[in-house]
Amino acid sequence: MSPPGSDHGATIDENDGIFTPRAVLIPFSTNGDMSRMSTEPTIEKVVIIGSGPAGWTAAIYASRANLDPIVYVGVAKQDPGPILPGGQLMLTTDVENYPGFPEGIAGPEMMMKFEEQARRFGSRVVGEDIVKCEFSSDGSAHTLHTSGGSVVKAHTVIISTGATANWLGLESEMDLARNGGGVSACAVCDGALPMFRDQPVAVIGGGDSALEEANYLTKFASKVHIIHRRDELRGSKVMQERFIGKENATVEWNKTVLDCISEPNEHGANRLTAIQLKDTVTGEVSELPVKGMFVAIGHTPTTKFLRDTDLEFDDAGYIDLKTRSSRTNIAGVFAAGDVADAEYRQAITASGMGCQAALDAEHWLGDQGLN
Amino acid sequence: MSPPGSDHGATIDENDGIFTPRAVLIPFSTNGDMSRMSTEPTIEKVVIIGSGPAGWTAAIYASRANLDPIVYVGVAKQDPGPILPGGQLMLTTDVENYPGFPEGIAGPEMMMKFEEQARRFGSRVVGEDIVKCEFSSDGSAHTLHTSGGSVVKAHTVIISTGATANWLGLESEMDLARNGGGVSACAVCDGALPMFRDQPVAVIGGGDSALEEANYLTKFASKVHIIHRRDELRGSKVMQERFIGKENATVEWNKTVLDCISEPNEHGANRLTAIQLKDTVTGEVSELPVKGMFVAIGHTPTTKFLRDTDLEFDDAGYIDLKTRSSRTNIAGVFAAGDVADAEYRQAITASGMGCQAALDAEHWLGDQGLN
Repeated sequence: MSPPGSDHGATIDENDGIFTPRAVLIPFSTNGDMSRMSTEPTIEKVVIIGSGPAGWTAAIYASRANLDPIVYVGVAKQDPGPILPGGQLMLTTDVENYPGFPEGIAGPEMMMKFEEQARRFGSRVVGEDIVKCEFSSDGSAHTLHTSGGSVVKAHTVIISTGATANWLGLESEMDLARNGGGVSACAVCDGALPMFRDQPVAVIGGGDSALEEANYLTKFASKVHIIHRRDELRGSKVMQERFIGKENATVEWNKTVLDCISEPNEHGANRLTAIQLKDTVTGEVSELPVKGMFVAIGHTPTTKFLRDTDLEFDDAGYIDLKTRSSRTNIAGVFAAGDVADAEYRQAITASGMGCQAALDAEHWLGDQGLN
Repeated sequence: MSPPGSDHGATIDENDGIFTPRAVLIPFSTNGDMSRMSTEPTIEKVVIIGSGPAGWTAAIYASRANLDPIVYVGVAKQDPGPILPGGQLMLTTDVENYPGFPEGIAGPEMMMKFEEQARRFGSRVVGEDIVKCEFSSDGSAHTLHTSGGSVVKAHTVIISTGATANWLGLESEMDLARNGGGVSACAVCDGALPMFRDQPVAVIGGGDSALEEANYLTKFASKVHIIHRRDELRGSKVMQERFIGKENATVEWNKTVLDCISEPNEHGANRLTAIQLKDTVTGEVSELPVKGMFVAIGHTPTTKFLRDTDLEFDDAGYIDLKTRSSRTNIAGVFAAGDVADAEYRQAITASGMGCQAALDAEHWLGDQGLN
């Protein structure tokens, strides 16, 4: 199925899982048809890009189905922000809503369990990213370029590179976000945590998703301050009215966040105590005491490496899945998780989509007689 | 939002979770407008029907969002077959593919964890089923009738009653299925288990899903026998050719299963050793040694109690979700899990759908000003 004349290829050393480019073998006899004599490159059945809940779940299902998948763990570069192999859960200290862990589980620990499960069934894992894709349109294998400079061919590709929350870009913000210090980019994930109950919190942003997060938080927090840089919100009127109608809701107009102020708690861990605000009109600097700061200035799906392909995206830049399946507009290319979901963005929904992608890929391979 | 003149209602005793019908209060003064004076019945924000992965996940999310959901655990009656509160996983001994449990987990233990997590956030759980639904079409509350004879009103209803595998109806079959003895209705779930590796197995059925299960099993089993009562398969030609082309694949034509034969293993647990077959043409009885039997004669979504509603179903009888959300054609009614999924049927996909349903219900309530 590989295109004639193709001379790229790659193999995996199964002993150590290290990805190494495959040497192109030169036939010792060159009379006759060169293209038929040259060794065909290895074509992977399933390549999975990304190592959040969607990617690992796809790997669990694909490896369990003997499809010998290879996972490129990727890096979700946040700009500004940290590098996150393992996905957004690496920034989540307590996951309370992934079903199966009644007492909750730390995000990084959860991702380690997912990876362990994928490896247990034989998934190969490569600590590189895919930086460029060349998807074929004729049903032949797709070509992927790795951050290490290698090329890999694949019959099916599962894109599960996630999305990253947009952050303000403050050092103090990232430090507190990484260490469960009271800064988060997901109210649905974290808003119900005990540390925010009956405490004042701030939501940064002014769009529908900021209003939604703020509305959600009014159920738990003693006071919810929306911090918005302008004198009117962008979110829908209905959402605004719903928020402003709550007795513990307020909007701080014309304010930007200069810094997050924290103090060590009894265990020595830094906890947010206030945010420093600047008035965008008067320039005045003030402090607002809050125990939580929820940054709600949007997400960016990780799709830069797909820029030059024919893959279809929706208006917000997410991979467009037109049906209830994981199929994209390109045959043999599937998507799962936040990179294709602007709506739910939960570990459990991403995992469900990862399972779908693996099963869809398996069916596709079967239909092509490749399985 | 409740319809005028409505006099049904129900409350939950929060101390013990027992569901009791609410007495209709008669106003002591009856002059003036009776309908305005009568006490409005309690209207639940979210009622969840079913207690498999989808139902419990919906409960985790809805309770964590302070929607105070009530779960009717329901009973998935199999006809023929056992009664299964807790869903199909109660029949699954080893769940290896639910992400988060690298060493696997027993189905019933997993459902207990889900339930514990839902209860931890305040979900109320009622050990009854919903036997009849009257969905409103004007945005007012829906009316649900319980198996205990009570009536409950709800602004939103999440249907997650699952589907049940159709079984042959043999006592030996059910006994082995319940106890991990080598009988299963899901090759994707169980086919990769060590007990079936390099062993002969049988798949009962002749449709596309039987062929799919059989094809899947050829990767693991030493030999896969399709047992079919007729002399041709109903499944698609492509699927048939794919199966018959495998060297470890065979079809036993004109055969039905009379009995499952088992022997105790070293731990005293019964394990399938053979199936007794009858030739539908000659009447001859024979024994086929197999270590696994996969029944693939279809599934039935649990929707009988929805028969008299305006809910839309697809051709196979599953609740028809037209978009990627959990919304049905009726406002405020959402569906999740196998009852709305003929395609993937996995614990992880059902859980993802349950999360979607809870978030969709929350948004719907918000849009109605009910949250």
